[in-house]
Amino acid sequence: MGSSPGAPRALFFDVFGTCVDWRTGVAGEVAALARRLGRDDVAPEAVADAWRALYQPQLETVRSGARPWVTLDVLHRDALDRVLADAGLDEVGAADRDELTRAWHRLDPWPDTVEGLTRLKRGAVIAPHSNGHVALLLTMAKRAGLPWDLILGAETARAYKPDPASYLRNVELIGMVPGDVMMVAAHNSDLVAAAACGLRTGFVRRPAEHGPGQTSDLEPEGDWDVVADDLIDLAERIG
Amino acid sequence: MGSSPGAPRALFFDVFGTCVDWRTGVAGEVAALARRLGRDDVAPEAVADAWRALYQPQLETVRSGARPWVTLDVLHRDALDRVLADAGLDEVGAADRDELTRAWHRLDPWPDTVEGLTRLKRGAVIAPHSNGHVALLLTMAKRAGLPWDLILGAETARAYKPDPASYLRNVELIGMVPGDVMMVAAHNSDLVAAAACGLRTGFVRRPAEHGPGQTSDLEPEGDWDVVADDLIDLAERIG
Repeated sequence: MGSSPGAPRALFFDVFGTCVDWRTGVAGEVAALARRLGRDDVAPEAVADAWRALYQPQLETVRSGARPWVTLDVLHRDALDRVLADAGLDEVGAADRDELTRAWHRLDPWPDTVEGLTRLKRGAVIAPHSNGHVALLLTMAKRAGLPWDLILGAETARAYKPDPASYLRNVELIGMVPGDVMMVAAHNSDLVAAAACGLRTGFVRRPAEHGPGQTSDLEPEGDWDVVADDLIDLAERIG
Repeated sequence: MGSSPGAPRALFFDVFGTCVDWRTGVAGEVAALARRLGRDDVAPEAVADAWRALYQPQLETVRSGARPWVTLDVLHRDALDRVLADAGLDEVGAADRDELTRAWHRLDPWPDTVEGLTRLKRGAVIAPHSNGHVALLLTMAKRAGLPWDLILGAETARAYKPDPASYLRNVELIGMVPGDVMMVAAHNSDLVAAAACGLRTGFVRRPAEHGPGQTSDLEPEGDWDVVADDLIDLAERIG
């Protein structure tokens, strides 16, 4: 899996699901909006799940070249129109739709995230490598106290994961080679793509990312360099 | 000068001279190399000054479009060949030239820099906006403990200061407007360019940047929003 001797010099982190709990955060903002509109028939978690289900199809419109580069805010906002229509929430106004789109900037970290990142930062460069754009990741980091050394992601590479360019351009940007860097994610598919580019791999179990009924990514599905129960455990395993 | 009410939401920092002491750092590495070569006739500070004097002409080769985008390492390395020839140091080998070029990654902060940035970070986003590239700024930050929220600069804008695109693209990247951001620099010319783009301006006196005989940038030469004696003083003035 492209591993080199010694500890990695840098760690790239998937963010949505790996570092922060998008489902609880988005559902909470949907619930608040539904209350304000007097719509107690809305199931906020179902809206969050439906929105997230459009994530990969939306990214694919850019990855395929069908659409020029746009940020995740634009993709989320487009998808939201469809999600609200499907949920029978057509009465939500444009300003509320814009504000709800920014729920993805305001997600809370998992309980171990800040401590785990703080420990990992002592021995390596730590950066998000997310499909979220820089402004989103910055707002999130300041709010949640995520102690990144720098902010990387699809936007700094102008390529969405799992496009190999997204990994390789960010490795180059920090002046390293792929074997210096470990991709850390709760999603096997992210690690498959990173390993194919020569990065090292760290899998973190997040069995509640999709709620109590989660069926995917419960266990590692590849020969990943490290498998951890959370980011504090990852810090202990990397040493 | 493009100021808006309240404190700035983000602070962009010039780095060479404003946050770190390039002259002492570079001269120190030149001195160590000269000692190793038995060349006690070399004046290390003069070599550092000559190297820095080629900085703007080198940047101009990219700004003018005469040369495609290259990082500051490439520009520094090219200039070094000329500097060493002028200093009668032709015997320096290629590996030593490459290593000496990385002296610009290993510069020490001024005594107030880390404390000043740490205080300023409580109330605003802090980022370098330097003509140094991301890898250089990252190595410097990890070594010196500069607590940036994220790393910006010419490379993230693909434009060297004082090109307006260098300021405006970085402001856009963090999801703000120019009036939200203060450019902080020890160089009046940087602030002239930033103000023309609508950014706020903070001048920091660094009277020893060019050594004891400094004649430029000793005082503010514009109606800057804030003038400070160092970064701790800046933090107190911004509040």
